Amino acid sequence: MTISVAIAGATGYAGGEILRLLLGHPKFLSGELSIGALTGASNAGSRVGDLMPHLPQLADRIIEDTNVDTLSGHDVVFLGLPHGHSAAIGRALGEDTVVIDCAADFRLRDAAEWESYYGLPHPGSWPYGIPEMPGHREQLSGARRIAVPGCFPTGATLALLPAVAAGLIEPDVAITSVTGVSGAGKKASVAMLGAETMGSLKAYNTAGRHRHTPEIEQNLGEVSTVPVTVSFTPVLAPLPRGILTTATARVARAVTQEEVSEVYEAFYRDEPFVAVLAPGQQPQTQNVVGSNMCHVQAEVDVRSHRLLATSAIDNLTKGTGGAAVQCMNLALGWPETSGLARAGVTP
Amino acid sequence: MTISVAIAGATGYAGGEILRLLLGHPKFLSGELSIGALTGASNAGSRVGDLMPHLPQLADRIIEDTNVDTLSGHDVVFLGLPHGHSAAIGRALGEDTVVIDCAADFRLRDAAEWESYYGLPHPGSWPYGIPEMPGHREQLSGARRIAVPGCFPTGATLALLPAVAAGLIEPDVAITSVTGVSGAGKKASVAMLGAETMGSLKAYNTAGRHRHTPEIEQNLGEVSTVPVTVSFTPVLAPLPRGILTTATARVARAVTQEEVSEVYEAFYRDEPFVAVLAPGQQPQTQNVVGSNMCHVQAEVDVRSHRLLATSAIDNLTKGTGGAAVQCMNLALGWPETSGLARAGVTP
Amino acid sequence: MTISVAIAGATGYAGGEILRLLLGHPKFLSGELSIGALTGASNAGSRVGDLMPHLPQLADRIIEDTNVDTLSGHDVVFLGLPHGHSAAIGRALGEDTVVIDCAADFRLRDAAEWESYYGLPHPGSWPYGIPEMPGHREQLSGARRIAVPGCFPTGATLALLPAVAAGLIEPDVAITSVTGVSGAGKKASVAMLGAETMGSLKAYNTAGRHRHTPEIEQNLGEVSTVPVTVSFTPVLAPLPRGILTTATARVARAVTQEEVSEVYEAFYRDEPFVAVLAPGQQPQTQNVVGSNMCHVQAEVDVRSHRLLATSAIDNLTKGTGGAAVQCMNLALGWPETSGLARAGVTP
Amino acid sequence: MTISVAIAGATGYAGGEILRLLLGHPKFLSGELSIGALTGASNAGSRVGDLMPHLPQLADRIIEDTNVDTLSGHDVVFLGLPHGHSAAIGRALGEDTVVIDCAADFRLRDAAEWESYYGLPHPGSWPYGIPEMPGHREQLSGARRIAVPGCFPTGATLALLPAVAAGLIEPDVAITSVTGVSGAGKKASVAMLGAETMGSLKAYNTAGRHRHTPEIEQNLGEVSTVPVTVSFTPVLAPLPRGILTTATARVARAVTQEEVSEVYEAFYRDEPFVAVLAPGQQPQTQNVVGSNMCHVQAEVDVRSHRLLATSAIDNLTKGTGGAAVQCMNLALGWPETSGLARAGVTP
Repeated sequence: MTISVAIAGATGYAGGEILRLLLGHPKFLSGELSIGALTGASNAGSRVGDLMPHLPQLADRIIEDTNVDTLSGHDVVFLGLPHGHSAAIGRALGEDTVVIDCAADFRLRDAAEWESYYGLPHPGSWPYGIPEMPGHREQLSGARRIAVPGCFPTGATLALLPAVAAGLIEPDVAITSVTGVSGAGKKASVAMLGAETMGSLKAYNTAGRHRHTPEIEQNLGEVSTVPVTVSFTPVLAPLPRGILTTATARVARAVTQEEVSEVYEAFYRDEPFVAVLAPGQQPQTQNVVGSNMCHVQAEVDVRSHRLLATSAIDNLTKGTGGAAVQCMNLALGWPETSGLARAGVTP
Repeated sequence: MTISVAIAGATGYAGGEILRLLLGHPKFLSGELSIGALTGASNAGSRVGDLMPHLPQLADRIIEDTNVDTLSGHDVVFLGLPHGHSAAIGRALGEDTVVIDCAADFRLRDAAEWESYYGLPHPGSWPYGIPEMPGHREQLSGARRIAVPGCFPTGATLALLPAVAAGLIEPDVAITSVTGVSGAGKKASVAMLGAETMGSLKAYNTAGRHRHTPEIEQNLGEVSTVPVTVSFTPVLAPLPRGILTTATARVARAVTQEEVSEVYEAFYRDEPFVAVLAPGQQPQTQNVVGSNMCHVQAEVDVRSHRLLATSAIDNLTKGTGGAAVQCMNLALGWPETSGLARAGVTP
Repeated sequence: MTISVAIAGATGYAGGEILRLLLGHPKFLSGELSIGALTGASNAGSRVGDLMPHLPQLADRIIEDTNVDTLSGHDVVFLGLPHGHSAAIGRALGEDTVVIDCAADFRLRDAAEWESYYGLPHPGSWPYGIPEMPGHREQLSGARRIAVPGCFPTGATLALLPAVAAGLIEPDVAITSVTGVSGAGKKASVAMLGAETMGSLKAYNTAGRHRHTPEIEQNLGEVSTVPVTVSFTPVLAPLPRGILTTATARVARAVTQEEVSEVYEAFYRDEPFVAVLAPGQQPQTQNVVGSNMCHVQAEVDVRSHRLLATSAIDNLTKGTGGAAVQCMNLALGWPETSGLARAGVTP
Repeated sequence: MTISVAIAGATGYAGGEILRLLLGHPKFLSGELSIGALTGASNAGSRVGDLMPHLPQLADRIIEDTNVDTLSGHDVVFLGLPHGHSAAIGRALGEDTVVIDCAADFRLRDAAEWESYYGLPHPGSWPYGIPEMPGHREQLSGARRIAVPGCFPTGATLALLPAVAAGLIEPDVAITSVTGVSGAGKKASVAMLGAETMGSLKAYNTAGRHRHTPEIEQNLGEVSTVPVTVSFTPVLAPLPRGILTTATARVARAVTQEEVSEVYEAFYRDEPFVAVLAPGQQPQTQNVVGSNMCHVQAEVDVRSHRLLATSAIDNLTKGTGGAAVQCMNLALGWPETSGLARAGVTP
């Protein structure tokens, strides 16, 4: 049997990354996975080769219109659409179809938070696609509806999860995440021009305005006995891919570096896509480019009585497309690591 | 009368930036300032044109050896040497010579802190070159020994000074500063290769290890009634010049955005080189490249009960060479802004 | 008397660069030059501080509408408009007004070439603003209408002029010019997004399609006894500013490296803004960033019987805004180098 | 049976890229290929995780010393050493061992050329690893000694081969190749610092001095009836990976664009790793990053009577490590495309 996969919003960066990964997936190479409809909005009717020349195997495919007809009849449908569109498509597709949503629609469980940040009625929540969070791998295995997490929440959650779960830090966390420019998507804008972003750094959507803020708090809250408050500052930096997260919080009690390192090592011991670096080694985004890895470090700052947790991911791979494929593997019962690199495209 | 200026360690990035600024200084263009000895260590004997082709006016000058003989007989001597060398040179040069040290030797007043971070006996402290700090402009005017601040402390201090002085925040500050690569200096290294730094982000000298940490605490402590503790995380990003500082602390009391904006506006109203941006506008490093400006913003995050202060500087201009020239202007009684651009080389 | 200067299309990159230079011009600092109307199209009504935060001195100025009324009554008017608009404005402004056009309208003398490349009736030609071309400085001195050259033609012309004038090469020249992204201007586009341009290289407007091709041929033809044919390949590279031009042609006769170096040295001996580098040293764009310099090198390739001429400029300074200010200085009888840096913002 | 693979000089960029590809190779994932000795010089004794954190699977492996003992007993040995070392190792290893040399030692057949460019006695020549060149795939299939081509020759050869083979152009070719910084290798140097290379462009090893010049001529000469002369100008640009080659030559006779496009299409029709782009589409390096593809375009410039051929490769994949793995596949009789991506890591 061949699993047929469709992608809605295939011409954006998330769609392009999912396609790159599927084209190298062992199930595609063996003929057990086929790439079905690729859909878009304004791009419908265009050649893939004109829009995504990095996918030469698909150059002569034509982008179809995003609608229920084109997306029906597939076993797996990835949604790479702006938020607000996923609920209707999710309802229209059969219950047996695996629907993997890369938008924010089904990430938050708190309706008030969702409506406050997204300005629309809350569509509900789906199993949340960070398999490394306690209990999530089980929920995702065999799931038919999956919400892929935001890129910043992935990096921040994996950096902080062991410390929060072990009660090492106070629940008041200051996070600065520095991101490459592909996170802003493939849409024309003066602010995201090369001339405006190369050679420059700026914070944006600061002071709680970024929509990923409540998502990070929800994730950390899952392993905490008390609510976790996050101050989140995203910074735009001149590189295509990568998120480096730095997070600090006061230590809840005196801890040694050895204890912290052991907590992290133990928490991620069996995770294929999280590497806790050796003491003294800081994550560097180039080491995870194109891979599904998250590199993590945690250090005690005895001077300021704080713990510093840092992580590096590729925002388009582990941060979006790789997470989506990892979730597909779990949903279909395939080996979780299939088609996902652990080695980064470095330098 | 012509003021003669020498530079020790002229071939590094600080030296090159000071020279760039001096060559455009109105006193140089009018013949009232002349560029004397340019010295180096391993570069002694080389042509300036081979080492610093961005200074065509000086192409045929020869780098001399750094010693008391070559540096004597000038009115102003800039020191761009590794720390540990300034005290001896400072003692050997006449008391009337203006000595402006770009190294860390005379920045810290606390001997124990200095010795802990630099591993040498504390050489003392000189007037500290951030004229925008209360009382400092007065100390620097006519001074004959000046310590130019570190690049990170400049950005962090200017971002936080009004908030600390007004008692708006608790004295437990989390700072992440993202910096371009020129801050690491002009010395061969694998870690600072273009291939290792382009397309990558990493934190380094984390968890209180960076030598600028106590300097930031000293500066903020000057305007605080209680000691200020800083958690400092520097991040290396792929751009040549620029530092973006993000700093958060819990608000000490309920404050409105209007109040915070007024505090910042009032604090910097008369400062030629600090611009408090309009509400909602975040500093962007490209807007200050090559200029002596610091762009600043402060925002209340009501969600996390924190204040976010951000700033952008060019680490080689306001962060080093521009600050050095600003201090020279004050020392010599020249207009403080002479030879220093407020407009950035953008984009 | 104060010279009043207006800029039409002030919010683009050319306009922003002209303003940066004017704000540092000695005649502005002394009060002899004032900045009058700044106009735009869709940006009319906006605060300068919102559009060009790199110009803090002008932050509270408002962009006016581009029309004859707003532009009238000034002594100098810079035009930074898309081509096709300059003729009407030029006619409407008084004959005594210095009009300096940064668009292509008046660059080409050959009407058929102009119409073929620009698709509009040929508006004529104005004195062409490369003062380093034989006879041009004389035409530009006191001129009231000036056409600022294209950025690529400036780099290619200055690289090749001495060789063509001395008859060293055959008139069949292959040019590849690598450019930073600011040359594409400040308009929203997917192709010029940071994510599409960082980490990437591509040729564009190839095979004679680029509009600067006939302009280069016109310039080289001025110093040649036979028409010069140019194959021109522009390449987009991930940096904000800078053009590196590489040009090769077969040598017309056996020449030594010494002879070539002497020809170049002699040709540019008295030029303040052209530096012929020492033998063996290649131009590097970072050394001219923000400056009005062109760095040039010429080498004999004995293996292929070709001469290689290379040059580096900042496309926004010597390539546009700096050339415009240099021409203004000549038009007004001010020192040609006023307000223009020779030292680059390096690194 | 498991094929055991060793890498000499494993810690350089070529070695790191070969390892990245091997770790994703289906024969490695199925256990039919194992990674044996990884050797280095000054790095011997170090942990892989400290030197190449992008390879988490190998983090705890230790780099051994490069010598015949450590390299013996493997089925395949990749050599990533500076030139001059391969001959001795090649002789010492058994005749049945597949030795794939990434250095220049065995690339050139002309001893005088080799000695002139490399300053050592000519060690001979091995089958040359561009399978897309006529006859080469046959030589490489089952070969036990293989010379991996240089990165520039790969891009230039694939761009020009169809035109030269079809006699479309005169044998006097001007090539400018723009390269990312990883081509310079992983060794400390001031000139290759991030601060010296970001935001900058420069030509280097110009005028026939680059060692890849005779290699390009050799390759094009193989399909030409007359010797081909190349003027080669490499340009360094600020990106980690990628080579964009632009090559022009006078057309040998009147040709139409249609004819040229057909020649290129026909030449590469069956090649898995060469994509001739649609008319009007230029190669862009980001589209091939991490892949083994070469994107090619050829255009007639009727204005200058020249043909422009352009190509994009990843210098570390198709330009080095990917070519090495492609050759290994051929040598071992495995599917040529195994373990090599056609989709690029874009953006």
